[in-house]
Amino acid sequence: MRLHVPIRLRWADLDAYGHVNNTDMLRILEEARIEAFWATDDESAGSMAVLDGRPGASTLSLIARQEIEYLAPVPYLRRPLDVSMWLSRMGGASLDICYEVRSPLGDPQEESAQTLFARARTTLVLVDAETNRPRRISDLERAAWQPYVEEPVAFSRS
Amino acid sequence: MRLHVPIRLRWADLDAYGHVNNTDMLRILEEARIEAFWATDDESAGSMAVLDGRPGASTLSLIARQEIEYLAPVPYLRRPLDVSMWLSRMGGASLDICYEVRSPLGDPQEESAQTLFARARTTLVLVDAETNRPRRISDLERAAWQPYVEEPVAFSRS
Amino acid sequence: MRLHVPIRLRWADLDAYGHVNNTDMLRILEEARIEAFWATDDESAGSMAVLDGRPGASTLSLIARQEIEYLAPVPYLRRPLDVSMWLSRMGGASLDICYEVRSPLGDPQEESAQTLFARARTTLVLVDAETNRPRRISDLERAAWQPYVEEPVAFSRS
Amino acid sequence: MRLHVPIRLRWADLDAYGHVNNTDMLRILEEARIEAFWATDDESAGSMAVLDGRPGASTLSLIARQEIEYLAPVPYLRRPLDVSMWLSRMGGASLDICYEVRSPLGDPQEESAQTLFARARTTLVLVDAETNRPRRISDLERAAWQPYVEEPVAFSRS
Repeated sequence: MRLHVPIRLRWADLDAYGHVNNTDMLRILEEARIEAFWATDDESAGSMAVLDGRPGASTLSLIARQEIEYLAPVPYLRRPLDVSMWLSRMGGASLDICYEVRSPLGDPQEESAQTLFARARTTLVLVDAETNRPRRISDLERAAWQPYVEEPVAFSRS
Repeated sequence: MRLHVPIRLRWADLDAYGHVNNTDMLRILEEARIEAFWATDDESAGSMAVLDGRPGASTLSLIARQEIEYLAPVPYLRRPLDVSMWLSRMGGASLDICYEVRSPLGDPQEESAQTLFARARTTLVLVDAETNRPRRISDLERAAWQPYVEEPVAFSRS
Repeated sequence: MRLHVPIRLRWADLDAYGHVNNTDMLRILEEARIEAFWATDDESAGSMAVLDGRPGASTLSLIARQEIEYLAPVPYLRRPLDVSMWLSRMGGASLDICYEVRSPLGDPQEESAQTLFARARTTLVLVDAETNRPRRISDLERAAWQPYVEEPVAFSRS
Repeated sequence: MRLHVPIRLRWADLDAYGHVNNTDMLRILEEARIEAFWATDDESAGSMAVLDGRPGASTLSLIARQEIEYLAPVPYLRRPLDVSMWLSRMGGASLDICYEVRSPLGDPQEESAQTLFARARTTLVLVDAETNRPRRISDLERAAWQPYVEEPVAFSRS
């Protein structure tokens, strides 16, 4: 099972090459993670959204590792990018999140052939905000995230 | 042989956790790459700085892949981070750049024990700005960069 | 007549104070301007959206001047900010855009009392991308924008 | 008396127009303010640098108002911009900072004729981090900043 999260570009994500800067692609992934994992009172939140990520919350979600493959330059697009996400590993206190970033959904002539812009994987560690030490994934979190565990994203190079 | 490039943080690189945001660490690497590789008329430029990277230049340097391991949160620091760089591969039109990002040099009580904040590796492709196709590393570039070819950075996890 | 544009924050807009950085508030205004003024093939585009702002388009929209008053710190919010926009002046080749940035719409307990976070005004100049010189506001543009001309935003200080 | 602070661009400050984005010009001003005002143990710090601005410090410096005039597009420059700064007002708990941003110093053929890229003014309020209320400018601060009080920057338009 994969979660699809639409993420909008900002004009300033483009650099002087006229493409989304390599760094801002990770910003896109960060926004997709928050949308997917952080609890909200919005009823439209997905079923993975059980992590209390508010500033001042008891858990910090820290990034331990990231890997990203850029397959095609991302031009400026008004419609949101289509970020699909799943998990490739759930450990004691950390998890591996995989992503595929594609051109926007909903464009009739594109539907059959979205461009795959990037593949990525992030290792995220849950950290107790008080002690600054990793804390275990709770049963609630594990149950919410388990349906999204799949094979890791396959990078072209390594 | 390794090149040491000092790179300053900006206050806005910090996020609400009070640490440099994971994404902005790649921004730091981007600045270090430009400082190391792009030609300039500044006499203090290092010997790797032979690539014409100006906007409008004939070569674009595009990022094909990045991998980064975050080993310790980076606090706000007024002195520049110490980014050490070397190459782990020179192909026909692409190269792999390795980095270690450490706490600032020049702090007497730190000198013996700089903190290693991050390790990273970037695959960079030289692209002809006219044709948008990869172009070969020139003899001049190869000669300038060869002394910096070393073993790849050793990541803790993979 | 005022246009209301919802603009989402990004997590990285926060700085170490835990509020949206003063600079990123202007990023929010930039996104609101694009949403309001740039033409798109999206049917939901508003009636001001007649400017061809695509990269490579014949018109550049350059900023000549900005003024912003920060009235309350902006915390992290998942729901989009409510940016209301209007024009306070249409000249030959330039226009003054006014903004009020408020807390999100649609929160029942807030509806009656949205927080006013910021007031701002931007002078935008239409520039011919070929000649790099100002170009006149077209009749089409003038007709589309005229209904939104109002009194200038009233700043508290000056 | 004016303070000259050199501030380096980052490549990602450029947007798709190939110029420094209007928003990032304020980022440049933020960096100049920190360099000018925040105390540091670096001996090269200027005489205005008496404010404890570290994350977790007892004073927050919040921005209440900004005004900026963009006079010429800023291209990518490897040498640091020359930001000159002074004060146009010192109140009880707030001060007005003026800026002129020019092309880099030290280029022989430019010295006589640096380009003036932008003029700006910021109202900064000192806030007690505990109480979140404005706190008075201390005698030490007032003495350090007084020599830099001058006439306000003269904007072309208003």
